[in-house]
Amino acid sequence: MANAYYVLPENNIVKLNKTETKHLRVTRACIGERLLGLDGKGNIYTFELTGLNKEEARGKIIEQNKVEHDSRVVAIAIAATKWPSLRIALEKATELGVDKIEIFHSDRSVARFDDRKIEKIKKVIRESSKQCLNPFFPKLEVTSSLNEDTEYLDIILDPSGTEPKNIIETLSNKTRIRIIVGPEGGFNQEELDKLKKTGHLMSLGKRILRVETAVIVSLAYVNLAFNRL
Amino acid sequence: MANAYYVLPENNIVKLNKTETKHLRVTRACIGERLLGLDGKGNIYTFELTGLNKEEARGKIIEQNKVEHDSRVVAIAIAATKWPSLRIALEKATELGVDKIEIFHSDRSVARFDDRKIEKIKKVIRESSKQCLNPFFPKLEVTSSLNEDTEYLDIILDPSGTEPKNIIETLSNKTRIRIIVGPEGGFNQEELDKLKKTGHLMSLGKRILRVETAVIVSLAYVNLAFNRL
Repeated sequence: MANAYYVLPENNIVKLNKTETKHLRVTRACIGERLLGLDGKGNIYTFELTGLNKEEARGKIIEQNKVEHDSRVVAIAIAATKWPSLRIALEKATELGVDKIEIFHSDRSVARFDDRKIEKIKKVIRESSKQCLNPFFPKLEVTSSLNEDTEYLDIILDPSGTEPKNIIETLSNKTRIRIIVGPEGGFNQEELDKLKKTGHLMSLGKRILRVETAVIVSLAYVNLAFNRL
Repeated sequence: MANAYYVLPENNIVKLNKTETKHLRVTRACIGERLLGLDGKGNIYTFELTGLNKEEARGKIIEQNKVEHDSRVVAIAIAATKWPSLRIALEKATELGVDKIEIFHSDRSVARFDDRKIEKIKKVIRESSKQCLNPFFPKLEVTSSLNEDTEYLDIILDPSGTEPKNIIETLSNKTRIRIIVGPEGGFNQEELDKLKKTGHLMSLGKRILRVETAVIVSLAYVNLAFNRL
């Protein structure tokens, strides 16, 4: 069960939408109970449940803590991949406090995304944020090809890359990092040549890691380098 | 589909048992085809398929590479937890090249293990080894309480612990490390007091990580410290 609820704050009250209200009912929450709320923008609320019906719930704010965001932005760009892998990657990237998740289409990607799938993705991110008490819900962007964003230092995961220790050492004075994870079959040579021009290739070792494992391990390394735990 | 098969070598041939033969048939492998085999003890074989029936298969060894194990032993001890979490933890620990997986019963553990579950655990470890081409299959030990093994330096994951950077720095001259991951509700105070006497507590940060995420992140840090990728 989640450790917090997604809430919409309004003066000294919080409102819970239909989905959150349903969760609240499943947990048999009672009027008067104290609960934790997140608005996804850095605030953690302690609220007392004051109203609960089928459609919505509300509570009185008892305490509000604003978590300050550090000066870094960490993004992860994942080539569209099959749902079981992607679901774990989304959940874990959120647990590890990533600021933005980009999902892009690469030459060897097999998965396609329609609106229903995007809703499913958003739900996983929100549920994971509530579970792990991440006060900043990661932004989501689903694109047909990888965004060229020159503000980021790109780290591309590839077996031909440098070992993590060397890459991590170069990160300390950077503020915007994007990790790029290719599809199951890897990037094709053309994609790789283009990516190499502006980013650094990093190898995660001699074993073949699944997409979701590569996401977790690389984010763990960046968090360690940034002391961002 | 797996990237290699589990094989039993015998002079210049390899034998595949019933389960592996079934996998082979599913992939529609043909006589004469060249495949990769692992014996779980550090050998990677290239073999040519020479025989295939319903019960067993065999092949002629074309090439044999012995992978040398480094001088370290990395173990992970996981408090018994629910299957979906445990399954991911087992799969990923294997991908990250752990040498031994211990599953123990802790005060707040909810899951119980019978022989059928142990077979399921072994299967996940073997399948993951084949998938990621890990030449050393991790050893498994399922115990009713945590083994006291004084040969290991224990790192206990706990929110009250030291940050990873400091712990990692103390690892460089160690050869036997065991990471200990508690149950979902954490260790109780008595368990923690006992563990603290011989090991180091390490915190993975302010968010609440699921068991499987904690397993992956902590093993990634140890691998980084040991340059063991």
